[in-house]
Amino acid sequence: MNIHAPVTLDVLNRLKEAAGPGGWLEGADTEPYSVSWRDNWVGKTPLVLRPDTTQKVADIVRICAETGTLLVPQGGNTGLTGGGQPRISGDEVVLSMSRMRKVREVDPLNDTITVEAGVTLLEVQQQAAEVNRLFPLSLAAEGTCQIGGNLATNAGGVQVLRYGNARALCLGLEVVTADGEIWDGIRGLRKDNAGYDMKQIFIGSEGTLGIITAATLRLFPRPVDRAVALVAVPSPTAAVELLARLRGSLGELLSAFELMNENTFIFANQAMGHADPLPGAGWRVLLQADGPESEPPLSERVEAALGAVLEDGLITDAVIASSEAQAAALWRIREEQAEIQQRIGAGVKHDVSVPVSSIDAFVAEADAALRAVYPGIRQCTFGHAGDGNLHYNPIRPEDWTDAAWKAETDAVNRIVHDIVMKYRGSITAEHGVGRLRRDELLRARSPIELKLMRTLKKAFDPKGILNPGKVLPD
Amino acid sequence: MNIHAPVTLDVLNRLKEAAGPGGWLEGADTEPYSVSWRDNWVGKTPLVLRPDTTQKVADIVRICAETGTLLVPQGGNTGLTGGGQPRISGDEVVLSMSRMRKVREVDPLNDTITVEAGVTLLEVQQQAAEVNRLFPLSLAAEGTCQIGGNLATNAGGVQVLRYGNARALCLGLEVVTADGEIWDGIRGLRKDNAGYDMKQIFIGSEGTLGIITAATLRLFPRPVDRAVALVAVPSPTAAVELLARLRGSLGELLSAFELMNENTFIFANQAMGHADPLPGAGWRVLLQADGPESEPPLSERVEAALGAVLEDGLITDAVIASSEAQAAALWRIREEQAEIQQRIGAGVKHDVSVPVSSIDAFVAEADAALRAVYPGIRQCTFGHAGDGNLHYNPIRPEDWTDAAWKAETDAVNRIVHDIVMKYRGSITAEHGVGRLRRDELLRARSPIELKLMRTLKKAFDPKGILNPGKVLPD
Repeated sequence: MNIHAPVTLDVLNRLKEAAGPGGWLEGADTEPYSVSWRDNWVGKTPLVLRPDTTQKVADIVRICAETGTLLVPQGGNTGLTGGGQPRISGDEVVLSMSRMRKVREVDPLNDTITVEAGVTLLEVQQQAAEVNRLFPLSLAAEGTCQIGGNLATNAGGVQVLRYGNARALCLGLEVVTADGEIWDGIRGLRKDNAGYDMKQIFIGSEGTLGIITAATLRLFPRPVDRAVALVAVPSPTAAVELLARLRGSLGELLSAFELMNENTFIFANQAMGHADPLPGAGWRVLLQADGPESEPPLSERVEAALGAVLEDGLITDAVIASSEAQAAALWRIREEQAEIQQRIGAGVKHDVSVPVSSIDAFVAEADAALRAVYPGIRQCTFGHAGDGNLHYNPIRPEDWTDAAWKAETDAVNRIVHDIVMKYRGSITAEHGVGRLRRDELLRARSPIELKLMRTLKKAFDPKGILNPGKVLPD
Repeated sequence: MNIHAPVTLDVLNRLKEAAGPGGWLEGADTEPYSVSWRDNWVGKTPLVLRPDTTQKVADIVRICAETGTLLVPQGGNTGLTGGGQPRISGDEVVLSMSRMRKVREVDPLNDTITVEAGVTLLEVQQQAAEVNRLFPLSLAAEGTCQIGGNLATNAGGVQVLRYGNARALCLGLEVVTADGEIWDGIRGLRKDNAGYDMKQIFIGSEGTLGIITAATLRLFPRPVDRAVALVAVPSPTAAVELLARLRGSLGELLSAFELMNENTFIFANQAMGHADPLPGAGWRVLLQADGPESEPPLSERVEAALGAVLEDGLITDAVIASSEAQAAALWRIREEQAEIQQRIGAGVKHDVSVPVSSIDAFVAEADAALRAVYPGIRQCTFGHAGDGNLHYNPIRPEDWTDAAWKAETDAVNRIVHDIVMKYRGSITAEHGVGRLRRDELLRARSPIELKLMRTLKKAFDPKGILNPGKVLPD
């Protein structure tokens, strides 16, 4: 980390003026913007800017570029990698997008919506529903996270299998560049090869290459029929084969396919009292299909499809939800895993991906490697198996303290990530790099790939003022 | 265009040596690599290099970087914009990827295939079919075009509506950078946020930022049931409303939705003798649904869906193919449009996109604007309405010569593209820029967007040796 001089009073005043009345916070009011909600990233900032127009964002960035002031863009502050908070040095100004809240256009015939960066994900979903459309990005923080942050981190979630991640859902962007110019790339086009596709540069760049101020997003037909099932599988391999079979019989209707190990159910029962619908069943898959109204209804089609694979021994048992309440109860066990695991004991969390065909080998090898060093760990493995994305979370042995286990974080990461790399996987599948994975990234990606990344950073933020020290070291 | 010295004999010899025995052509053998198959782009080159390994590609690029030798990468040479041929100056060496033909891996459980750049699109489709999977990219040149070129131009085709364009189908890339280094970004991951997504830089960059040597591509369940229908609609607006309705009832099963004006059928009859299944019907939509085996079969579901919209007046007539032969006959009228129109007379071809909701307004305005200047033109309008992508081709008035109409190309382009821009559309939706749309691109995109594009070019090809003068002026 480079050492910078504190931001001068003169610069702070210029920035306040650019943000306009009501457009900034200082002192104690900046604290909520300086800490993360998880993992305790604590920072400090002399000023939180809250502009409400793209022009004001551009004015702010221009002042920062001119004065070499470091800027940390922030959405809903729900990230999990320390990518959205200022560092403790106190020499960084926070640019909160939370007042950029306009829904600029809803075009149901074009299946698009154009919103400003500060609109929450939930609001985008609701706006879509109002015109009988679906915006399929869905994740736990959706009531708080903002679409600008979702795009800046290329957010994932449970429906990537069917609809793709945030990148795949974005057709157009408005961006303030690192020198404070406004690029109007707002377009609602499904096909556009008129030169380099510049929006790809900014999506997933975690605010280090430009500031996303607005976006045009894809909408989809709103499904009206839904089927949810929990099935028991003899192994992760069987789950993967099940996935291939179900995609063959249900096609794109299959919208979620979540692999969960037995501990996730045992702990859900211990921590929350949730009944296990398939006690003693080992690995499970929670799956969902969504589609248009059809005869027979989807639940019957899912039942028929599962019946066929039961005969082949790919699954050993199954429960199909017969009501919305049952479906919700099944999903609750998956959705509450963060809290469930927290109650069981400290965990070292991983957000990895491997080829779907390597899930089994990865899990077996990582489990064995960790157990060899840490007998007694309690492994929680769950995630979006359809995307090869596992939240692989070893929880401390029962007789360890939380603190002792936390102290092993780097060592545990190293063991797990080495095996991820062996399978050409990713050490951060959906949460991004931020600060949490920055040093591991230097190990995980080749020198040439890192050089290409630095080339990109240098080209689009030559002064290094945008979210310094995130993704790459500054 | 900058003036360069001819490539010296010494450099030519070094390049030949790097390409290895059988790895280069010169003299008359270079001619097929120097001209385009359409629109008569004619160039000249002293040497065509045909390396058969990534290492040899890297060796070649390194020599070019060191000596400032200009390099034109080429796939199957089926492009429509003059992007793959050397210029007439004769100072550019051609790098043909046609001997990079290995299928490196097929992983049906991961739904991926990894192939080298010179494998044809048809071969990729066939390899996928062999493991009961679908590779959905499909376009007229598929027997000749190569996957490297498809990715370099972000190819589209008829199934983008459902599966996305080439960019959406690519999970990993191997690239030789402009300084001759090999970036191994071959990965089969659906989710990967470990740093900047570098493959996005190279996809769609038309060989101007790096050389794609191999790629990992997404595969899909192979549909087994298909329904094809031709419907008559009162207007393009009705077609767009029909699209929304059918996506509601058929969901992602709808895989093609091609809008065609009446002339495309009249001329198909005049030029080829193809019978018009709905004579006198005005605008038509050729649509296709594909899916897994289901009860009732897809054709019945499509029939039911069309019955519902017929009652509402959204469509006025419909033919549902009752056999594979009938389906093929319907598709033939769409697929042979290039040849059909050529037989009718010279046309000025456009490959534009607008928001789907603006198709009607765009067509009305462009038709009127052209007719005001050129009474008697015969308008052929057809294309992928589901993506807002129209091939909008005015054919010369009957009493004009081909040459006279060709001479109007720039003026016609200007009229059409101005209206495209008014609707925030794209002047090149799927064919790319190459040389054909390069000068119009400078009008179509804002100075800031062009500056961002130049920043990217400068960062990744600082010496300007890769496909100079394509996409952007050199």
